[in-house]
Amino acid sequence: MREIHVIGIGAGDPDQLTLQAVRALRDTDVFFVLDKGEVKSDLVRLRRDILDAHLPEGGYRVVEARDPERDRAAGGRGYSPAVDQWRSARADIYERLITGELGEDETGAFLVWGDPALYDSTLGILEEVLARGAVEFSYDVVPGISSVSALVARHRTGLNRVARPVQITTGRRLAEGFPEGVDDVVVMLDAQQAFRQYADQDIDIYWGAYIGTPDEILASGPIAEAGPRIERLRAEARERKGWIMDTYLLRRRPQG
Amino acid sequence: MREIHVIGIGAGDPDQLTLQAVRALRDTDVFFVLDKGEVKSDLVRLRRDILDAHLPEGGYRVVEARDPERDRAAGGRGYSPAVDQWRSARADIYERLITGELGEDETGAFLVWGDPALYDSTLGILEEVLARGAVEFSYDVVPGISSVSALVARHRTGLNRVARPVQITTGRRLAEGFPEGVDDVVVMLDAQQAFRQYADQDIDIYWGAYIGTPDEILASGPIAEAGPRIERLRAEARERKGWIMDTYLLRRRPQG
Ligand SMILES: C[S@@+](CC[C@H](N)C(=O)[O-])C[C@H]1O[C@@H](n2cnc3c(N)ncnc32)[C@H](O)[C@@H]1O
Ligand SMILES: C[S@@+](CC[C@H](N)C(=O)[O-])C[C@H]1O[C@@H](n2cnc3c(N)ncnc32)[C@H](O)[C@@H]1O
Repeated sequence: MREIHVIGIGAGDPDQLTLQAVRALRDTDVFFVLDKGEVKSDLVRLRRDILDAHLPEGGYRVVEARDPERDRAAGGRGYSPAVDQWRSARADIYERLITGELGEDETGAFLVWGDPALYDSTLGILEEVLARGAVEFSYDVVPGISSVSALVARHRTGLNRVARPVQITTGRRLAEGFPEGVDDVVVMLDAQQAFRQYADQDIDIYWGAYIGTPDEILASGPIAEAGPRIERLRAEARERKGWIMDTYLLRRRPQG
Repeated sequence: MREIHVIGIGAGDPDQLTLQAVRALRDTDVFFVLDKGEVKSDLVRLRRDILDAHLPEGGYRVVEARDPERDRAAGGRGYSPAVDQWRSARADIYERLITGELGEDETGAFLVWGDPALYDSTLGILEEVLARGAVEFSYDVVPGISSVSALVARHRTGLNRVARPVQITTGRRLAEGFPEGVDDVVVMLDAQQAFRQYADQDIDIYWGAYIGTPDEILASGPIAEAGPRIERLRAEARERKGWIMDTYLLRRRPQG
């Protein structure tokens, strides 16, 4: 039976792989690397570097494929037809990769950025491929250090305050309003810098871009003060590298 | 100058240490192990096993101290005087450990269960010790695989659904009501099995106890069906081992 490891490889620092992830890499015959397009090719290279670092003796195969770009203009609320189409196009590709490139007794792996549990579609797509029934395989998941964990570690702060909740959400959702019932909110996938609209509130921001990589940038402070600084840093970095990935924690200060 | 690593060691599986954590262990002269009392001594042993696995040549010092038990009856809402007292008692101990047991040019480490970012007070206490000004040190944080990441990896599911938020909260809070604005909720520190009060709703539970350890137990399904099963498993396990640590994800099924 074909086997697949879904391996969380951390969000940028190759030292943030777990020993379990390294073992899973060593146990793999074929690596599937999905390329999201040229601007993200740095990320593909990073995955390659990780393989080279941990499998110095070579002897593995890498199969690259192009990940269809999701039509973001079509809305990101989760259940739109555009998202369904995109998932199904990806399932086609994954099915083809598994059927065509993985021998019956081989082990394949998908290397997932950060933790496969956070804003990543690999698990959903594998389930869809299995549900179609054209190919059989078993799979397991190796958790990884997410960009969220890496962010707060670099800022030496916690995600939650004592006995209080924390929410992880997207820039798009934050733009619609500050989440109810929580004062600590982590924001990912924010192309619009939604934190700006909370500059008039007593909220601290802990921001990081390219966390764990040599390009890492960190900034923090009250949004009113740190916000404009972050906007500048972000624009410069984006200009310089052509793409950016950033994440931040918003922490509302206790009242009174 | 004294240096301190706050090292996330994962939530039970010693293979879920990161390479960065292993490096930090190897860079440490003195390990501070805080014991929460006899029922948790299994956890102290697990920490010892990790040290033995990664520092086979020995040559390190371990200093054990008793962590004052927090008075839970006094309420867990975060800002009560009982919590302040408890923090301050812990800061006394940490200050004494750092001043008394760590030489001026030595590196110490606190081994933190899971990820130091989630429901752990080590970072807050170190900040309090620094603020008192009696001892100087620098510190860094090594993120770890949390029980939350480990839970969903074992269930091969994600934390969030596409483009949707996830909240991490406590059993005490969940008992007060299902959080607003989210359909995916991770619950930690739940001594009262608060999921039971949602058995009449269209919610799936993904539950795990002692995740990553040889005693691991997993169960999932609609709360109405899986809930009673989990209650039984939990009671048996608690009886057998004398203590339990469990975490779960509640996922509300889409309406219509
Ligand atoms: C599709 S999600 C994948 C998240 C990933 N699974 C994780 O656990 O971090 C991509 C988002 O993750 C965040 N991200 C990933 N890596 C990052 C890094 N090194 N620095 C800052 N943010 C990062 C950004 O918010 C980005 O928009
Ligand atoms: C004080 S909190 C510490 C959490 C830890 N910092 C982490 O990242 O997992 C303790 C809670 O974590 C959860 N927990 C920790 N380890 C666990 C494990 N191996 N299995 C299940 N739950 C665990 C339980 O909900 C427990 O009540």
